[in-house]
Amino acid sequence: MQPVDLVIFGASGDLSARKLFPALFQLLKAGLLPEDLRIAAIARDEVSKEAFLEVLRERFTSRMGEYAPDDDEWQRYSEHFAYIAADFSVIDQYSALKDWLDDARISLFYLATPPSLFAPICSNLDEANCLTGDCRIVLEKPIGESLETSRHVNNTLAKHFDESSIYRIDHYLGKETVQNLLVLRFANRFINSQWDHSCIDHVQITVAETVGIEGRWSYYDNVGQMRDMVQNHLMQLLCLVAMEPPNSLDAESIRDEKVKIVKALRTIDASTVDEHLVRGQYSRGWSVGNAVPGYLEEPGCKASTSNTETFVAIKAHIDNWRWAGVPFYLRTGKRMAEKVTEIIIHYKELPHNIFGRGRNFPNALIIRLQPDEGIEMAMVSKRQSLKDKLALQTHTLNFDFRDGDESERIPDAYERLFLDAINGDQSLFVGREEIEESWRWVDGLIKASEAQSVDAKSYHAGSWGPAKAEILIEKDGRSWHV
Amino acid sequence: MQPVDLVIFGASGDLSARKLFPALFQLLKAGLLPEDLRIAAIARDEVSKEAFLEVLRERFTSRMGEYAPDDDEWQRYSEHFAYIAADFSVIDQYSALKDWLDDARISLFYLATPPSLFAPICSNLDEANCLTGDCRIVLEKPIGESLETSRHVNNTLAKHFDESSIYRIDHYLGKETVQNLLVLRFANRFINSQWDHSCIDHVQITVAETVGIEGRWSYYDNVGQMRDMVQNHLMQLLCLVAMEPPNSLDAESIRDEKVKIVKALRTIDASTVDEHLVRGQYSRGWSVGNAVPGYLEEPGCKASTSNTETFVAIKAHIDNWRWAGVPFYLRTGKRMAEKVTEIIIHYKELPHNIFGRGRNFPNALIIRLQPDEGIEMAMVSKRQSLKDKLALQTHTLNFDFRDGDESERIPDAYERLFLDAINGDQSLFVGREEIEESWRWVDGLIKASEAQSVDAKSYHAGSWGPAKAEILIEKDGRSWHV
Repeated sequence: MQPVDLVIFGASGDLSARKLFPALFQLLKAGLLPEDLRIAAIARDEVSKEAFLEVLRERFTSRMGEYAPDDDEWQRYSEHFAYIAADFSVIDQYSALKDWLDDARISLFYLATPPSLFAPICSNLDEANCLTGDCRIVLEKPIGESLETSRHVNNTLAKHFDESSIYRIDHYLGKETVQNLLVLRFANRFINSQWDHSCIDHVQITVAETVGIEGRWSYYDNVGQMRDMVQNHLMQLLCLVAMEPPNSLDAESIRDEKVKIVKALRTIDASTVDEHLVRGQYSRGWSVGNAVPGYLEEPGCKASTSNTETFVAIKAHIDNWRWAGVPFYLRTGKRMAEKVTEIIIHYKELPHNIFGRGRNFPNALIIRLQPDEGIEMAMVSKRQSLKDKLALQTHTLNFDFRDGDESERIPDAYERLFLDAINGDQSLFVGREEIEESWRWVDGLIKASEAQSVDAKSYHAGSWGPAKAEILIEKDGRSWHV
Repeated sequence: MQPVDLVIFGASGDLSARKLFPALFQLLKAGLLPEDLRIAAIARDEVSKEAFLEVLRERFTSRMGEYAPDDDEWQRYSEHFAYIAADFSVIDQYSALKDWLDDARISLFYLATPPSLFAPICSNLDEANCLTGDCRIVLEKPIGESLETSRHVNNTLAKHFDESSIYRIDHYLGKETVQNLLVLRFANRFINSQWDHSCIDHVQITVAETVGIEGRWSYYDNVGQMRDMVQNHLMQLLCLVAMEPPNSLDAESIRDEKVKIVKALRTIDASTVDEHLVRGQYSRGWSVGNAVPGYLEEPGCKASTSNTETFVAIKAHIDNWRWAGVPFYLRTGKRMAEKVTEIIIHYKELPHNIFGRGRNFPNALIIRLQPDEGIEMAMVSKRQSLKDKLALQTHTLNFDFRDGDESERIPDAYERLFLDAINGDQSLFVGREEIEESWRWVDGLIKASEAQSVDAKSYHAGSWGPAKAEILIEKDGRSWHV
């Protein structure tokens, strides 16, 4: 395998310190990366490599606790590093990078920068002759804020990189549980053979955060939860749950199937938006024990009113053979009661209940990404009881993939994704077509919402969103899992 | 509910001491039986009630360990008892029983006696005017040794009791796990919707004992494993696995469905017996660490040769819509390597394995009655591994019905069955038609075996039976679970 160099743009930023450098540390420590891996950290600050690393180590120590590196480990880690002080937006400042790069090696450019810099960095890299070797580029959301702007970003990328060299991260895809969902679905006949409308009643996907907009008011007010969370994370989870079995596990096969799901999403237009969309905006309340301000009281808020949503609930339909008649209830919000990301597959009720004691307990498969990654099945079993011969109980089976060792560290999503990008495996990265089709659907939904003036209903911080979100699902005789 | 009296014939026998009286003790202790329950223990020995109970208590203590009754408990227990010394075969000796019975109460006669006494006891009870009230009768296998003789027993019973008052025990049906199998199948859509030939590859039922014939040579040599185990226990397990969902849980609905399975069993005749039946007889070997004699060296053996089987393996087919093409491999033997009773549902392999690493791991549901009761599902999950992204593992999920409390006592099958007989619930007892249809099939198999002179192949005590039993299943590309 060709040796790899990493070039991290935005090396002093938050993402780098929290995720990228710790992930690289873990991978190197585990011996999963080549000994001769070179890392160029690029940031504006005119400091020495030593000064940069010193700051980085402090951030490691405060975050990583028991997993923080000791002196030896840090020494070995820092030997992989170069530090290049540069303003990415200025073409003249690329010469040090050019000198550092080696065309005999693969260059992997990681853009941990604001999205406004994606285009200038790409063209500067090209103009400064940094793309003469075998190159890959890694970047994260947001890839645009609409179909039009995402096309613009993708067009820019395409000018300098082939699609097969572009690694668009949705970090949800790097989670062990998400990958295990694919194994669960496609390596277990027992699961797979009933993954359709004949057995499944409905699907719920919840991505709930307890945080607010975290000081990003003016950015967020132009974006809202729909663009910030639905278009990317929720859509990716939806695709993995709903897609047909791919022909193989290669990136192209998986992307083909995911795109088919996005394309099959039924358009929600002005005539149907009222029944399928609920928008919300948090007002002051209590979050995890603390009094917190409302959205319009957040620091940086410059408006007296705003119709930007911090909460969305959607009832979606996938118009294909497998999912006909099976609604997908999607929900995401900030300042919710709990931090939880989960997918719930609700099986249909028994056609005929011979145990006949009132309630029917339908089976449910729970795929949890947060707070504790894991997959569970809610089943019905007989409770051991002589007195009550038919005492039934729901029983939650844990599909634990840690093989009994609860203490084993679950790798961070970025470790998986870094390793795959270095190994040239795109299967857990997002393709251009998925992103654009997803924007097409979300744009339509936003347009319909605007046409019908669907208000962002107020909900208290620390709640599960506006009452209308309950009504959205309960009018169908169902209810949210949490 | 009408009060109940129990009359135990054969009260000094082994079954009574090991199972019946301990079960009654547990039920009374748990407050599940009426305070005014009366128990008449009948045996030949001319002893006082006190002497009878003293011997019984010793047998309790040596068997029950920590669950043995203390003085208070024993006192309360013994207050329910009467002891009647009588020779059941003599009509004159029923007067004491007649005096003890009370027509205002239900009399439940439990025949814990050799089967040769079933008919005389019934007619004596009738003749001595003991059946003038509301009566039930409970009895155990063997109900005959062929279709003809079982009909004879059933006809005799029918002369004195209505079918709705006859409780034929197969103690396997009293096990918690067997009842839980019904819940698993019929209360979980997730399980039920794929319980057929489209998803299931084959089923295995193994009832393996480590004991030999336990001093019963002359009895056993006339019977063999087919009559001793296949006709009753294996057939009952087969029925519960294979039956259609019953309309309800009442005895009639369940029996109707079980009978349909027995009737759908494909006849094995002289032309097919060689491919579907393996017979075996143990030779000397090692059992659970001890050197043990062969069948023809057992105490009481009077023959130099015998073709009686102590092991049977059968490949059976159920000719109905649900099970077309799904073989049921049945196996039972004495002096096997382990004491194990289990049912294995093998799901089909994946139609297309995208994980593509050599072996396919098919799902399997394991329903274990011995040594540890429980239900497990063998699934495939992703092993947490950064290095090997597609590292799969089989993972066994435990459908534990003890709700986390491993220390909880699992009630003995006889507790459930006693309680049901007292409550008049026949659903876990075996109906006449099931027994006779089962004999019809077993008789046919024995006849075919004799016509083709299928030998009982020698196998070493402590093995898994003759090599031909492996070939029976391996020629189909499958293998025994243990």
